[in-house]
Amino acid sequence: MWHDLHPLGLHAETRGYRRYAWTDADTDCRAWFREQAESRGLTHETDRNGNQWAWLGDPNAGDAVVTGSHLDSVPDGGAFDGPLGIVSSFAALDELRERGAQPRRPLAIVNFGDEEGARFGLACVGSRLATGTLTPGKARELRDADGVGLPEAMERAGHDPEAIGPDPERLARIGAFVELHIEQGRALTDTAHPVGIASAIWPHGRWRFDFRGEANHAGTTRLDDRRDPMLTYANTVLAARKKARLAGALATFGKVSVEPNGVNAIPSLVRGWLDSRAADQDTLDLVIAEIEKAAADRGARDGVDVSVVRESFTPVVEFEHALRDELGRILGDRYGGERVPVLGTGAGHDAGILSGTVPTAMLFVRNPTGVSHSPAEWADEDDCLAGVTALADVLEGLACR
Amino acid sequence: MWHDLHPLGLHAETRGYRRYAWTDADTDCRAWFREQAESRGLTHETDRNGNQWAWLGDPNAGDAVVTGSHLDSVPDGGAFDGPLGIVSSFAALDELRERGAQPRRPLAIVNFGDEEGARFGLACVGSRLATGTLTPGKARELRDADGVGLPEAMERAGHDPEAIGPDPERLARIGAFVELHIEQGRALTDTAHPVGIASAIWPHGRWRFDFRGEANHAGTTRLDDRRDPMLTYANTVLAARKKARLAGALATFGKVSVEPNGVNAIPSLVRGWLDSRAADQDTLDLVIAEIEKAAADRGARDGVDVSVVRESFTPVVEFEHALRDELGRILGDRYGGERVPVLGTGAGHDAGILSGTVPTAMLFVRNPTGVSHSPAEWADEDDCLAGVTALADVLEGLACR
Repeated sequence: MWHDLHPLGLHAETRGYRRYAWTDADTDCRAWFREQAESRGLTHETDRNGNQWAWLGDPNAGDAVVTGSHLDSVPDGGAFDGPLGIVSSFAALDELRERGAQPRRPLAIVNFGDEEGARFGLACVGSRLATGTLTPGKARELRDADGVGLPEAMERAGHDPEAIGPDPERLARIGAFVELHIEQGRALTDTAHPVGIASAIWPHGRWRFDFRGEANHAGTTRLDDRRDPMLTYANTVLAARKKARLAGALATFGKVSVEPNGVNAIPSLVRGWLDSRAADQDTLDLVIAEIEKAAADRGARDGVDVSVVRESFTPVVEFEHALRDELGRILGDRYGGERVPVLGTGAGHDAGILSGTVPTAMLFVRNPTGVSHSPAEWADEDDCLAGVTALADVLEGLACR
Repeated sequence: MWHDLHPLGLHAETRGYRRYAWTDADTDCRAWFREQAESRGLTHETDRNGNQWAWLGDPNAGDAVVTGSHLDSVPDGGAFDGPLGIVSSFAALDELRERGAQPRRPLAIVNFGDEEGARFGLACVGSRLATGTLTPGKARELRDADGVGLPEAMERAGHDPEAIGPDPERLARIGAFVELHIEQGRALTDTAHPVGIASAIWPHGRWRFDFRGEANHAGTTRLDDRRDPMLTYANTVLAARKKARLAGALATFGKVSVEPNGVNAIPSLVRGWLDSRAADQDTLDLVIAEIEKAAADRGARDGVDVSVVRESFTPVVEFEHALRDELGRILGDRYGGERVPVLGTGAGHDAGILSGTVPTAMLFVRNPTGVSHSPAEWADEDDCLAGVTALADVLEGLACR
């Protein structure tokens, strides 16, 4: 199964994947999904928003147990983020059949379209459209870097862009959604468990810091006469790391732009983007307030004006406790009663989007290096197989008993 | 005189000057120079490298006393950097005539072409070509941001690009060159003198620092698992400032580039350019060594590889001591025997290029804010007039006694 999927969208030089929504690589991945479904006698359908479904049992019976993930990638992404969930879903279904388990509820595997948002800049477009958290009007305004609109891209790939929009009837037929995903961190490595259960997706956001000083000649302006925003920026980068560390949160300055960005010019403006996340809202609020204060204090010293704009924010997503506890019991049985780790995560997922509409849970498979969104992303084969067994246990426990 | 020059190349929105070499604005400035020369009965000529000369007396007599500066500007530069030296030269000549001084040596005013290098990326092209420190071959390879070559730009502006090259006969006829320039700093403001004399142009250079870490997901990678080069960069920016301050030198990170430069991505590479200058070579060497060590030490802590490349370097330029002392005596007389400040400067000038070939000196006029290369650049009228008087004294002292 992996064998056929591996080469699709693989970049020869970077060895990373470039599977962007509605591109040829995406079409190839979709064809692969359909083949996997049909070769198992599952009913394949593509919904109005371009999400693919493979059904075992009657799709219209209701109270279905659905698993799956996504096949698209970030630029030069790894092989596991997304595909591991899809491949494990098909493999878990195979394992259920080998066990001779008889589903009492319909089962389905889903491939959500455009989860990473690498092409059009918005993540989870397929699940957002289905749940109505993204309106068709807004979706039709999305453009890629070449100016191609989402409707045009859909049409080129053979999907009707007029059809997109909320899909409440379909979602109402789902009784539970479970997404398996490679862990994007090393928490499981430290706990020595191959599989964990998600507790919540941390609240997270992006803040733009504008540091405004005064452009001047780097070769002649005395240090005391400068208003150099690069100093304030640098100090804020280090303060963000420190405040996040003390609070057990995450804070990252990964993007910066400078004006005029000349080697012999003290900048007039340094603009830095902060990505920050924490296990709960109060901690995140505290960390941001502390970073803003550190920036303002240093700005006063440097003669630099600091302004901060929150560009985006996603509140905490708590996965349903009943389903989470049910998964804990099922997997506890598998591991001789040992408690399976329950982890928070900083990353967004389709499961997070669906959790507002459908009882939802997530399983994580151990990632020995913690590297994610990179060709170096990795999971050991034994851990992948443990993930399949865990997912099969969950599907059997939810649908077959 | 200022009145006619002011609007040329002035940008309506920024209120800064955009007088780049061989553009229409530059041609307008050149026409202004020629008018000023001819209205005073001076002999105007443009040399093979596009530098303009206005002669009082026989250009071929030798041992000439030359003053002047440049009319071109940096992007959105101020009104004084360059033009103050030219305008003061014409005004000083007017003052000499009013005094009835009789020159015994030829006098000339020069407008050096393309001093700022704003268009083709290399400063002091006119004086470098004349002295031979830039070969015609290298000059013909220069391109502007639109891909227009220097020869094509010269031709469009009516100058023969085939003619460029060393001009030793012309330089051999110059006995002394004195350039008046607005100070690019606030040293004179602190000493309460309107005019100062240059001692030297500091040694200066550019170093590129490459900080290589590991790209990863900003939302999921634990702080302890990161190799984040932005932290190493930030710490190096602050270390550079501190090391320069302790050594009495200058150090500036004004340009930075980041890969992949995504809001939710820990960077794989942060590249920062350091501009550093000091009064002497030993101090500069020490500062650079200390900054490199600080970067390497922090890099080891962050798991980030640091490599440093020196991209350019200009050794110290000491102006001729005999001429400098002569100027000190002349101006000392003007100010009742009080010693005129002697200042080093971090900026390059045509005077620095010429100093290898011709006895050269510089006068600086007080800049109350120290701002340079910006529309906010300023000198008070009284100080400008004091500059004209000082320059007239120097020309009279050198050429008329």
